[in-house]
Amino acid sequence: MSFTVQIKVMPLKNLLDPQGKAVLGGLKNLGITNVNDVRVGKHITLQIDAPTEEAARAVANEAAQKLLANAVMEFYEIEFVN
Amino acid sequence: MSFTVQIKVMPLKNLLDPQGKAVLGGLKNLGITNVNDVRVGKHITLQIDAPTEEAARAVANEAAQKLLANAVMEFYEIEFVN
Repeated sequence: MSFTVQIKVMPLKNLLDPQGKAVLGGLKNLGITNVNDVRVGKHITLQIDAPTEEAARAVANEAAQKLLANAVMEFYEIEFVN
Repeated sequence: MSFTVQIKVMPLKNLLDPQGKAVLGGLKNLGITNVNDVRVGKHITLQIDAPTEEAARAVANEAAQKLLANAVMEFYEIEFVN
């Protein structure tokens, strides 16, 4: 079976996010002033061949830990689509 | 009220995604071979002050169209958290 898995990789909440700060400044310059905080991360969609959802989740976890997320600065969340 | 809005910005489905191809190659090199396709985009979390959810959605749409997504190459999806 083929599973569509979305992985969200975001900077840890207690770390500064300079890219988010830059976006926030850009929004203010465009006149969008009611945004208080912006954080920017990555969104990765994987198509995984696996016999079960659990097996697909294991693959996604391995991919996130080994390649996609840097645990020192980022956390990740895995979500299955439909 | 303060709303937490997540915006997912991904490359259009009919365009090449070189970053996704690079991640796919990296996964194969790590021995993760049952991943067929990878697409990489951005994930942006906004904190928006607005009277209603509709108003917050309008702000998020404006931010995505003016700054966050390049409509020529990307599409975006807006999602409210809780």
